[in-house]
Amino acid sequence: MRAVDIIRAKRDGGVLSAEQIEWMVGGIARGDVADYQWSALLMAILLKGMSGAETAALTMAMMRSGSIVDLSMIPGLKVDKHSTGGVGDKTSLILAPIAAAAGIPVPMVSGRGLGHTGGTLDKLESIPGFRTDLDLDGYRRVLAECGLVMIGQTAEIAPADKYLYALRDATSTVESIPLLASSIMSKKLAEGIDGLVLDVKTGNGAFLARLEDSLALAEAMCDIGRTMGKRITALITRMDQPLGRAAGNAVEVIESVECLRGEGPDDLMGLSLELAAEMALLGGKAGTIEEARSLCRSVVESGRALDCFRRLVAAQGGDPSSLDDFTRLPTARRRVDVPSPAGGFVQRLAAWPIGHATMLLGAGRTRMEEGVDHAVGILLHKKEGDRVAAGEPLCTLLVNDETRLEEAIAVVGSAYRIGPGEVAPADVILERLAD
Amino acid sequence: MRAVDIIRAKRDGGVLSAEQIEWMVGGIARGDVADYQWSALLMAILLKGMSGAETAALTMAMMRSGSIVDLSMIPGLKVDKHSTGGVGDKTSLILAPIAAAAGIPVPMVSGRGLGHTGGTLDKLESIPGFRTDLDLDGYRRVLAECGLVMIGQTAEIAPADKYLYALRDATSTVESIPLLASSIMSKKLAEGIDGLVLDVKTGNGAFLARLEDSLALAEAMCDIGRTMGKRITALITRMDQPLGRAAGNAVEVIESVECLRGEGPDDLMGLSLELAAEMALLGGKAGTIEEARSLCRSVVESGRALDCFRRLVAAQGGDPSSLDDFTRLPTARRRVDVPSPAGGFVQRLAAWPIGHATMLLGAGRTRMEEGVDHAVGILLHKKEGDRVAAGEPLCTLLVNDETRLEEAIAVVGSAYRIGPGEVAPADVILERLAD
Repeated sequence: MRAVDIIRAKRDGGVLSAEQIEWMVGGIARGDVADYQWSALLMAILLKGMSGAETAALTMAMMRSGSIVDLSMIPGLKVDKHSTGGVGDKTSLILAPIAAAAGIPVPMVSGRGLGHTGGTLDKLESIPGFRTDLDLDGYRRVLAECGLVMIGQTAEIAPADKYLYALRDATSTVESIPLLASSIMSKKLAEGIDGLVLDVKTGNGAFLARLEDSLALAEAMCDIGRTMGKRITALITRMDQPLGRAAGNAVEVIESVECLRGEGPDDLMGLSLELAAEMALLGGKAGTIEEARSLCRSVVESGRALDCFRRLVAAQGGDPSSLDDFTRLPTARRRVDVPSPAGGFVQRLAAWPIGHATMLLGAGRTRMEEGVDHAVGILLHKKEGDRVAAGEPLCTLLVNDETRLEEAIAVVGSAYRIGPGEVAPADVILERLAD
Repeated sequence: MRAVDIIRAKRDGGVLSAEQIEWMVGGIARGDVADYQWSALLMAILLKGMSGAETAALTMAMMRSGSIVDLSMIPGLKVDKHSTGGVGDKTSLILAPIAAAAGIPVPMVSGRGLGHTGGTLDKLESIPGFRTDLDLDGYRRVLAECGLVMIGQTAEIAPADKYLYALRDATSTVESIPLLASSIMSKKLAEGIDGLVLDVKTGNGAFLARLEDSLALAEAMCDIGRTMGKRITALITRMDQPLGRAAGNAVEVIESVECLRGEGPDDLMGLSLELAAEMALLGGKAGTIEEARSLCRSVVESGRALDCFRRLVAAQGGDPSSLDDFTRLPTARRRVDVPSPAGGFVQRLAAWPIGHATMLLGAGRTRMEEGVDHAVGILLHKKEGDRVAAGEPLCTLLVNDETRLEEAIAVVGSAYRIGPGEVAPADVILERLAD
């Protein structure tokens, strides 16, 4: 086979065979396909598309480029959740302990924040001592001990995806449904899971703003899962305003613990419980979604979900007492309120500027090699539909480095629109795709 | 500026500014645009196209990446010819001496053969001692002395084009009209010419088989020339059967000399004279194309064109006596006739297989780093419309290495179609584009 022939076939709108796709992906490790050949193919794929079979073949080839974790020694159906990323989205920290407490082993491999979106690893690392860089042995050990584990991507998992993702980032070939779907699924399927719940975000704070694109991505991922014999459910969820009332790292851990105590905000609690219920359903712990929901609610009410989280924190080197005494978590030096310019109702609270502002405060990063400040972030006192008086704080910025504080205040101000009319909060869950 | 933004703009069908294109081309020498970024952009250009202004900007930027030869010390309008390549196309060796003898300085920078198409440099180098690797000083000196010069591309001419061409070759991004047009024109315009005659081939032996593609390429090149203030004429010519009766290297030199003696085959002689006449017209040596034609015919009849070629050969280190005594040119060890399987008329003689067969005999190459055998090739005794008896030789293969001789014989056989009906030879010149 020759790379030029494969590139030409896709360039001309043809369908690549599984053998051709495997050969191209294998060429990364063999060294006989150049990065400039792969980037030309990526552009051709972005512009000409890929069939379901091609997307599945690409997923499989990237998955096989590294280790596929064997979790067969752990009894039960292993189920993970993946979100395409948003602002204030800390559902992983809530639903993983809930699902684990409901009896479903949760082997979770997460990412870091980039741009306006936060990342589960950064949030967890705001817990003093918490380590996300376990090797695959540690990953299996913690999962067996606690019923859940939360780590970052290891070098052994889907190295071809890592290579291609970096290349896509440098060549404007990220925004392709088949490339996005195969990238996500190759990593997830290498984790050793039996089932996967997808939270595909849509709206201004999501990676894909348009509902039809989010649906297409969800469908592509469900197709891949079906081809690979895995159980997949996808929810399309609204990411027009931030989820919950906290955006940052330590503040999101606090809000997650509040949810596990049964004291979280409705939108966040509702979505976390629903995703956990889907996991319980896929994991065979309930016969219907209603049963699954009541099982998940019960493990929160009984405190078993929070106990699960405490055990996880301890097993991964973190200080579990910080979940009860939040003063042990990183705290910002200064709190800056942003007052409402007018009285009325919050008509709109845009997620993107809130995410951007948390990044300006140092809670996020623009490039992967940068660090984050775990203490800083934003507490949203008012969200869509809330009544507010003129001068009343809309939100509070938690600040250490004030270099870009003025910019952050201006961006946050632009996120809110206040008006006289009452507004009903919109539903978070828009669509459900299941086999 | 950032490469990713420029790639994204083209990916999404946008029009790039001249500044963006210059920055990307400049990035090759600066080293801040990676080859994998350029290849992604090349694929986006191939699939999304470029406007006339973008194509001109790319041409200009590639031209400026190297030296632009100053030929102002040589009086008169300098005119070159460029062909997109074909089988048996030795018109350069004929028309350059004709145009020079007609008083037009001809600064010609040519290429080598690749695949089924021959190259002017390979043909010239079959003349013992002939050197095509002059530097720019030698180029100017020979042009001033002889009124013409024929060399290969130097490292100083359009290095960005050289880089991008290699990248396109490895990424299946060659077949794009704007990329083809800008590549050809950037080199030609850097030669120091005032006018250019284009011979854009169409048919099975041409790089572009379809007439509409050849026309689009010709129009794109004429547009660029106009933008740069150069005088351009393009002929679209038929490359369905080989041009003339010789395909190879030394055999094409011999046929060229025969043309310069006024004894060449009609199709080759006709096209060479017409292209030379267009050069004479652009060079201001005639007021009408009819005057230009008669001027060109007269320099052949008087022997001045052949004298010009002899002087050129001597000036570039070659043995001019080999043009009068062909036994001084490389000669193949063995001659193999290919007999006609039937009597009748040649209905079709396809150029591509004849070109491919000359390559199999060693007259051409599949990769640029390979050498060629100047002695071998094919003499076509029968062409389209010719009457042939069963068993009469259709052509003669001139052979040294017999490794692929059987394959070459089979391929040549497939090029001919013999049938009972009389066939009128088709016109070679199909269209003319001029300002």
